Amino acid sequence: MLEKIDLNVTIDKAAYRSAKEALSNKLGVLQRKVFELKIPVLIIFEGWDAAGKGTLINELLMPLDPRNVRVHNLKNETYEEFNRPFLWRYWSKSPEKGQITIFNRSYYSDLEYRQSLDGVDLQGLMNHVNEFERTMRNDGMIIFKFFVHISQEEQKKRFEKLQKKDATAWRVTPRDKDENKHYKKLLEKVNQELELSDKNGANWTIIEGHQKDYATIKVLNTLATRLEKEIKDFENAPKIALKPLIHDNDAQYDTEVLDHVSLDQTMTGPEYAKALNDCQKKLYLLENEIYLRRIPLVIAFEGWDAAGKGGAIKRLSSNLDPRGYTVYPTGSPNDIEKKHHYLWRFWRDVPKNGHISIWDRSWYGRVMVEPIEGLCMLEEYSQSFQEINEFEKQLSDWGAIVIKFWLHIDEKEQLKRFTERQNNPEKQWKITEEDWRNREKWGTYKIAVNTMLLKTSTSNAPWIIVEAQNKEYARIKVLKEVIAAIETKLGKSKK
Amino acid sequence: MLEKIDLNVTIDKAAYRSAKEALSNKLGVLQRKVFELKIPVLIIFEGWDAAGKGTLINELLMPLDPRNVRVHNLKNETYEEFNRPFLWRYWSKSPEKGQITIFNRSYYSDLEYRQSLDGVDLQGLMNHVNEFERTMRNDGMIIFKFFVHISQEEQKKRFEKLQKKDATAWRVTPRDKDENKHYKKLLEKVNQELELSDKNGANWTIIEGHQKDYATIKVLNTLATRLEKEIKDFENAPKIALKPLIHDNDAQYDTEVLDHVSLDQTMTGPEYAKALNDCQKKLYLLENEIYLRRIPLVIAFEGWDAAGKGGAIKRLSSNLDPRGYTVYPTGSPNDIEKKHHYLWRFWRDVPKNGHISIWDRSWYGRVMVEPIEGLCMLEEYSQSFQEINEFEKQLSDWGAIVIKFWLHIDEKEQLKRFTERQNNPEKQWKITEEDWRNREKWGTYKIAVNTMLLKTSTSNAPWIIVEAQNKEYARIKVLKEVIAAIETKLGKSKK
Repeated sequence: MLEKIDLNVTIDKAAYRSAKEALSNKLGVLQRKVFELKIPVLIIFEGWDAAGKGTLINELLMPLDPRNVRVHNLKNETYEEFNRPFLWRYWSKSPEKGQITIFNRSYYSDLEYRQSLDGVDLQGLMNHVNEFERTMRNDGMIIFKFFVHISQEEQKKRFEKLQKKDATAWRVTPRDKDENKHYKKLLEKVNQELELSDKNGANWTIIEGHQKDYATIKVLNTLATRLEKEIKDFENAPKIALKPLIHDNDAQYDTEVLDHVSLDQTMTGPEYAKALNDCQKKLYLLENEIYLRRIPLVIAFEGWDAAGKGGAIKRLSSNLDPRGYTVYPTGSPNDIEKKHHYLWRFWRDVPKNGHISIWDRSWYGRVMVEPIEGLCMLEEYSQSFQEINEFEKQLSDWGAIVIKFWLHIDEKEQLKRFTERQNNPEKQWKITEEDWRNREKWGTYKIAVNTMLLKTSTSNAPWIIVEAQNKEYARIKVLKEVIAAIETKLGKSKK
Repeated sequence: MLEKIDLNVTIDKAAYRSAKEALSNKLGVLQRKVFELKIPVLIIFEGWDAAGKGTLINELLMPLDPRNVRVHNLKNETYEEFNRPFLWRYWSKSPEKGQITIFNRSYYSDLEYRQSLDGVDLQGLMNHVNEFERTMRNDGMIIFKFFVHISQEEQKKRFEKLQKKDATAWRVTPRDKDENKHYKKLLEKVNQELELSDKNGANWTIIEGHQKDYATIKVLNTLATRLEKEIKDFENAPKIALKPLIHDNDAQYDTEVLDHVSLDQTMTGPEYAKALNDCQKKLYLLENEIYLRRIPLVIAFEGWDAAGKGGAIKRLSSNLDPRGYTVYPTGSPNDIEKKHHYLWRFWRDVPKNGHISIWDRSWYGRVMVEPIEGLCMLEEYSQSFQEINEFEKQLSDWGAIVIKFWLHIDEKEQLKRFTERQNNPEKQWKITEEDWRNREKWGTYKIAVNTMLLKTSTSNAPWIIVEAQNKEYARIKVLKEVIAAIETKLGKSKK
């Protein structure tokens, strides 16, 4: 994409001044519009060292209301970031609805480095990047990607200028000099990356960086023109009222997974006590081993209300070292979480290398409670399966073990447990009006769950159905499945 | 505090089981109470390596509802934490109102290390710690501090046991062995730290750690007993309705700072253009220099509505490298921020070493809008001055330059600017009903501001009053004052 660029374009001072004033006023207005309409905007600046990204970002900030702009400088990863999937820091820093977020450098600058680190090839990482941008766009985000371009000679000249002054000489690092020396080879790589990621709705705009004034106007103009168009499209789009998407009498998928689960398992007290003790001891040692080998473990618990998720999680974690694991209970999203993509809060809690994250309910709420209660649109619901599969694939590619449990009981057993809770003063708080209301929708939930189990059971992250009619049996099955998954990953499996 | 501890205490199995069951049930109930009453609870675990802190934390987690508990393991600082004041990570991880937060190790473990890093002596750091705990307690937090104690021989035995198995041998580090070797010397230091920080409302409880069962019951019992008492006190405390605390006709402080500010400065166009250019160039070089020397810079802007804070901040930042500074506009706190101490969100944005944080409005809202609008209690308002001074002192002690600007105009000038905004379609959005309402309270604000300027002008963070009737003059004064403060810190001042 860079070959055809003429770097000698300029603008004269008078034209610059009048264009800048007009565009600045326009951007101020557009920013307020974006805020009112709750549209998230992401602006990525990539480009050569010393191409002037910082200056352009400052020029862009001046007309904007700082209350709704964030700038993130993303050169080197921190230790926390380095020990997470490479998209982790971009998820966490992605703009709130209504906010403009500027990335000074981005995942595009990380690709080379992460390739060596994660053992995933460029195309694989690029897939993750394209998935990220598509996921964000589907959520309504407007994405701008600027590549600020200068020639090898221009870069050299700028480095020399910086080196002349004591206060700025440190800015030119050996790596920068290296970049200048191998400019031509790098140019090819950059070209390839730009091509692989120039997708519809997330296209690259090349900024000719030799003359600052020209570059500034091109950035401001690109933003103003497209924001104006996107806002108009947004305002003209038909408003779709949210409504429940799944109903009790909907046609079911052919395969009704849950109908083929038998629930007649039993386990005696002494049998349970021994198995529990054995499994917990084993898991403690495995926790140490995955910590040592830097393998992250992601476990999601789903299941019917009162199926015993909490009890199973307690038995799973009670002999672990609390430095190694965290339990994340998932309720309704809070105000901040609502301003982001529904996966945002789960990305936030992705474990560090060697650590364990356990979710009591998870991102699967998106394909159960949300469509049933009418909290998302049909299009969003349909996209979610792919987005969720990509999320879990990205975790697996990074090296994580991903385990998902569906704790299954039947309707009668649930009623028994609800009634028990209701009649026990110490357990009454566990049962709410909402639980009873959800129970009435058992049939609807069954359709949603069957669909979910089919569509999101993948080779890298299959669903494990836990027969939970007998609590002891269920708890031991959970422990054994976690142990088996770790052993397989460690190459210890007897299979 | 440790000399008198008898480590040979035990509990038999039957007593342990019944006590544990009773205490677990009680803690479940108390936790729900704490959540309903929105009381934040902090539980700190300190103690020798291998004393069993992890196990005790797990035992404590079992009876609790995971939705309202967080565990933070705080052994080594991350890069982000290491480059901030040492209390930064504890502020950011402090419990929300209604939540129980457990620190596995805490600032007490950091003291030795931070002493060498920050060049502040033990007593100085201990003051910061005690200030932190007092500030939290004043905000309603219940604080528990457990020190889990074992003997030198017991520790040695436990290390040997860990070393026997491959999966756990790595847990015993050279540093651990060193701790065991120099146990007696360390014991003295620990004793000293415990004594210096055993304050009313944040007392230490020593946990005899030799027998796990005994230790568990002591932890659970300490929590249950005190939580029960604190909850009762909380419920019996008289409810005080919030109301405005400052009124137009209140008696003023003797020194009415603002009455002695003259506002007749002028500046011509060419004079301004030259000064602006000179100052911005100079500041750019100084930004580089403080980055190199790892000096953080904290700037707070306060002033009357329409006094020109935004314009001054733009001139201050427009020639800086955006990688080095961030502007934080302060509005009403969001849902998450409301669940924390009012300083929490400002602590969150404390800059990294070598970076600049600029606030457009700041923590001083606590002593202006809050008492005037009746958003805090009289006691809270009065405590705030000390808390704010301590906050800024902690930043200075850490090495930061702290600058606070009050942009001053008179009532007539404000009316002129408000009217201008109202009549200019492009600026109308800048003026709201609330601005007009606040203007009516000019006299009340003046009392609050005078009080604030007097009480929070400290030698390490004095207020700088900027005469802002002439915008150009004000902008240059801001730039010059920032330059002067940096030069003084760098030892370049001509004074």
